[in-house]
Amino acid sequence: MRVVVALGGNALDGKTRQGVYAAQVRNALAASRQILEIVKAGHQVVLTHGNGPQVGNLALQQELSAADVPPQPLHVLDSMTQGQIGYLLQREIGNALKECSIARPVVSVVTQVLVDAKDGAFGDPTKPIGPFYDQGTAKRLAKERGYVIRRVKPRGARAFRRVVPSPEPIGIVEAGAISTLVRSGAIVVASGGGGVPVVPDRRGRLRGVDAVVDKDLAAEKLAEAVDADALLILTDVEKVKLSYGKPGERGIDRMTATEARRHAGEGHFPAGSMGPKVLACVRFVERGGALGVIASFRKGAEALEGGSGTRITADPTPREKGRKEPG
Amino acid sequence: MRVVVALGGNALDGKTRQGVYAAQVRNALAASRQILEIVKAGHQVVLTHGNGPQVGNLALQQELSAADVPPQPLHVLDSMTQGQIGYLLQREIGNALKECSIARPVVSVVTQVLVDAKDGAFGDPTKPIGPFYDQGTAKRLAKERGYVIRRVKPRGARAFRRVVPSPEPIGIVEAGAISTLVRSGAIVVASGGGGVPVVPDRRGRLRGVDAVVDKDLAAEKLAEAVDADALLILTDVEKVKLSYGKPGERGIDRMTATEARRHAGEGHFPAGSMGPKVLACVRFVERGGALGVIASFRKGAEALEGGSGTRITADPTPREKGRKEPG
Repeated sequence: MRVVVALGGNALDGKTRQGVYAAQVRNALAASRQILEIVKAGHQVVLTHGNGPQVGNLALQQELSAADVPPQPLHVLDSMTQGQIGYLLQREIGNALKECSIARPVVSVVTQVLVDAKDGAFGDPTKPIGPFYDQGTAKRLAKERGYVIRRVKPRGARAFRRVVPSPEPIGIVEAGAISTLVRSGAIVVASGGGGVPVVPDRRGRLRGVDAVVDKDLAAEKLAEAVDADALLILTDVEKVKLSYGKPGERGIDRMTATEARRHAGEGHFPAGSMGPKVLACVRFVERGGALGVIASFRKGAEALEGGSGTRITADPTPREKGRKEPG
Repeated sequence: MRVVVALGGNALDGKTRQGVYAAQVRNALAASRQILEIVKAGHQVVLTHGNGPQVGNLALQQELSAADVPPQPLHVLDSMTQGQIGYLLQREIGNALKECSIARPVVSVVTQVLVDAKDGAFGDPTKPIGPFYDQGTAKRLAKERGYVIRRVKPRGARAFRRVVPSPEPIGIVEAGAISTLVRSGAIVVASGGGGVPVVPDRRGRLRGVDAVVDKDLAAEKLAEAVDADALLILTDVEKVKLSYGKPGERGIDRMTATEARRHAGEGHFPAGSMGPKVLACVRFVERGGALGVIASFRKGAEALEGGSGTRITADPTPREKGRKEPG
């Protein structure tokens, strides 16, 4: 199968979220072992990743050194984390393949993701990014840089944070080049951090916008773009849960798109965590993809074979009912 | 012709070297116009770029915020500038092509460059990078982080700077993927900042090293890797000069590899500026490339046709003498 694998940014920055290089290498190494297993199982891999901790650190550095170095806009910081994380992933995946004498190019592609300037999210920024500020700094930054600042904690000195829009991804600008590489047999890292968000003007010219595209929804667009068979979203839990953290909590082994949408409607999947992962898988199978899987980042290969995680498939047509699912 | 175009980092950061986003966009826009001209002349383009001002800014930010955010090693900063500059170039080149209704994918590839751990440069770091320090800070950083620090100015409070090795590039790790993209018709941005320097261990596993590979020598390796016909190095002067800045200064229209090596031996090309550009072109034609050109970054397309810049070609074999040069 051709599989788009989505890896959380936290998985790449360790539980301590310290951003220390040695810890990032250890995590890239752990990710590379997972990718190796998936490759050894015979699958083609396109890898995407979050960048939350990394772009947060970069945003904090911009503020702390703003008197001496001009701060870069958020979309540029996104592109920088694509270079940073892409480098570590391609190096460590390449190393892991070499140890098993598997000759396969591994390459990261700087990726822009199209969003719509008229997306409602631009009028209602909700995604907190970067450092926490006290009220005075928050007011100054709002005035000087046009940041939208919200109180994110009920009390405390540093209770304010910048919020940015989280618009829907419409398409992957570099889809053609990524597909070319995938077809050539390369393992491609793309659309890191949800992609660098860009909007077209009337003539189609792109410009960057300060927004954060959800990494899992962008992964779904990537999976469509490369004509993937499966979308595998790796996270820090084994399965999607119903009644998560409540009495009666239970893991889901498999569900159809309609079942998933029903559970989502009943509020089982929180917006900031499992919600977009389930939505990404549902969209993928509704748009023709064979299989969406949400699984632990320690059990990616196993989950693709059905031995772990939660599998999401399209609703069976009457004729297909009772047939075995793909994968 | 298939042309590798090398663009200086200063050309991308403006004359003020301020690192302000708007200025970087203007410069990427100017670069995109040049690339457009070369594409319209019918050539295939692989673009590489320096990162001096950008990586200097990033290194300074690491120091200024080190108390709050863990500093990343230099090779990681290199990968970040590849994302940053690659994004701006691919976006603006894409925009320029769109205005002319030219459908061509434009894509940046995160690129590692192999260097030899036994390269003599590792015993003799010479390339200054990042901020200027006072003596106390210099001593502390040397102790805490193992930096090699040198006095770079005879006097003044901030007279010290970190120096890193500048080893020879041996090969482009992502050569295969880059070639695949080029053959597919894409315009590829690769090997930015001279590439992220990596060394193999005994088992061939790569690790990053804090070094700076000369961008023009890495461009030459890239040109070999993609089987380019021409290596075009764009800079801020019109031609290579003999006796530069001295009485009798004169521009060179064309020279053979042997003539170039002789002029270099006579000290006409300073090590920090024109020296590596001439050496890159000489190596390229000695290793089978048809044409090396050094020209103003405003006249790239013109220079490829012979109307500007300095052309470097292989020494003619006896049989070839008197023939027209390629291009």
